[in-house]
Amino acid sequence: MSKSINKKYKFNSKEILTADQYLDGIKKGNSQILSEAFTLLESNNKDKRKIANEILSETSNSNNSIRIGITGSPGVGKSSFIETFGLMLCSKGYRVAVLAIDPSSQQSGGSILGDKTRMEKLGANNNAFIRPSPSKGFLGGVAKYTNDTILLCETAAFDIIIIETVGVGQSETDVHKMVDFFLLLVLAGAGDELQGIKRGIMELADGVIITKADGNNKKLAEKAKSSYNNILNLIPKDEKSWKAIALSCSAIDNTGIYEVWEMIEKFNKSHSKSRRSSQNIYWMMNYIENKLKDSFFTNSKVHKQTIKIKKQVEEGSISPFIAAKILLKTYNEA
Amino acid sequence: MSKSINKKYKFNSKEILTADQYLDGIKKGNSQILSEAFTLLESNNKDKRKIANEILSETSNSNNSIRIGITGSPGVGKSSFIETFGLMLCSKGYRVAVLAIDPSSQQSGGSILGDKTRMEKLGANNNAFIRPSPSKGFLGGVAKYTNDTILLCETAAFDIIIIETVGVGQSETDVHKMVDFFLLLVLAGAGDELQGIKRGIMELADGVIITKADGNNKKLAEKAKSSYNNILNLIPKDEKSWKAIALSCSAIDNTGIYEVWEMIEKFNKSHSKSRRSSQNIYWMMNYIENKLKDSFFTNSKVHKQTIKIKKQVEEGSISPFIAAKILLKTYNEA
Repeated sequence: MSKSINKKYKFNSKEILTADQYLDGIKKGNSQILSEAFTLLESNNKDKRKIANEILSETSNSNNSIRIGITGSPGVGKSSFIETFGLMLCSKGYRVAVLAIDPSSQQSGGSILGDKTRMEKLGANNNAFIRPSPSKGFLGGVAKYTNDTILLCETAAFDIIIIETVGVGQSETDVHKMVDFFLLLVLAGAGDELQGIKRGIMELADGVIITKADGNNKKLAEKAKSSYNNILNLIPKDEKSWKAIALSCSAIDNTGIYEVWEMIEKFNKSHSKSRRSSQNIYWMMNYIENKLKDSFFTNSKVHKQTIKIKKQVEEGSISPFIAAKILLKTYNEA
Repeated sequence: MSKSINKKYKFNSKEILTADQYLDGIKKGNSQILSEAFTLLESNNKDKRKIANEILSETSNSNNSIRIGITGSPGVGKSSFIETFGLMLCSKGYRVAVLAIDPSSQQSGGSILGDKTRMEKLGANNNAFIRPSPSKGFLGGVAKYTNDTILLCETAAFDIIIIETVGVGQSETDVHKMVDFFLLLVLAGAGDELQGIKRGIMELADGVIITKADGNNKKLAEKAKSSYNNILNLIPKDEKSWKAIALSCSAIDNTGIYEVWEMIEKFNKSHSKSRRSSQNIYWMMNYIENKLKDSFFTNSKVHKQTIKIKKQVEEGSISPFIAAKILLKTYNEA
């Protein structure tokens, strides 16, 4: 949906709206304006970022949405699952936003998630909005950016926000700090070590979904389901006493998809927003830290000196501690 | 060694030396004074921390030591390995410091590593120094603290610094940012998933050691060694073209221990300090960030307001973004 609109509409920097106009558009559910606001967030242009910050400072802290994090190794069928799952939710009248965090798009410019050609049916649905991960060249922290985009989607009154990530590096931990429910997608019989499933991720998961439970794979998936349930039983309940379970589903046969939603609804009834307050504190701290670092390193005197000092630290001619002290002194005297 | 001296010597806050006196003692290899400097680093007392910072700012950035990180699940035999390995190094005339990062000692006050009764032989050796993880109540970041203790040990001219950690949470990643060589200890046949070996850790490891390769376990260990070598072969070489390998050893039979040192020496010859420059930049940034946050949150006006604002954020009555903005405004106007 957003894609087809974006094609028709050319974003022109002269046409930047005011923060109020953006907010108005976003609140009215105008996904073209929502897309543009996302572009502002991704922009390296100072003026655009300033408007983005003005918009953000007016977003409310919605408590009505359900935020679902979804992770899994490449090839596990995340796109197919999210498309089928998202279409089911749309058919029930929910408005669904899908956001992606793909660390690979930051590092290589390429993208494991390869958003552009995915989820065409869901993208064409009027109740859905899909936003790919910001690509290479984007300067802000991806985690903070994603949290900001969640706030914008909630201001646009989306009911369900799906945050998709690849299970590499730090991104699952980041996503876990933003969502109400965290889903891990796995394949049956692919060999746990080769799937790269870290014990840490299993412990973060509120639910494990064995994907592609269809055709010849069906039996294997059921076996995997009980294995995963055994493993999940070994992991202690979290502080909110939710016990994660494993389910199987097929995006092709459209089986088991609704059961995933039932699980999330069950969680939501008993644990509604149980994590949000500590998450909100985390994000408050995160905003503050980012801003402090930003003021520091964009200070022109500090900036100039950092280039020189970094060289000395890399060569080993001064210690990191002394280098930090020199830069801090410059900043405090500037 | 340090322990026996500590028993005789009662640390008295009135007897705090000057930074120069500490430095002088540390440089002369006085492990009693080194221990006291560590205590200053762990202290929550502002004056003591100030002296600690003065000491740190005079430590040089030694390029002569070898820093070895060692991780592995509880029960894998880390203490026995480090003791045997450390005694072998001491017998070759090296001075060896063993530092520990144990996140559990921060969270529970208890300690997985349980340092106090471990490595008695090594601790009694005149060429060795053992320092446990700071326990509950310690306010600073454990990672930064450990990096500081490394600098002190290097100022005290230790040749080999071993940093031991439990393979839980974030600590391996932290340790990897401090060391030249990173060792993962594993048991044969314990089942990878139950050992909690994360794919991420395997990728960090420069070497994998199968421990307890003795008695009935010997055959199993050799089998595990070739399995791990197969897995390590699948992991691409790092940017410095070092290919991690798996070895087996027994602390009881004292077999395979010297081979571990040969591997590290080989690495050190071809990759000497290859990681230090990027690590040093990381620690410079880390010092700056910590200092910025510290100035912010210890500001009395900010401190007062933070208590109030946190409550509002937790209740959801204001967004994290707005909360951050309010606190930043207070700070900038203070």
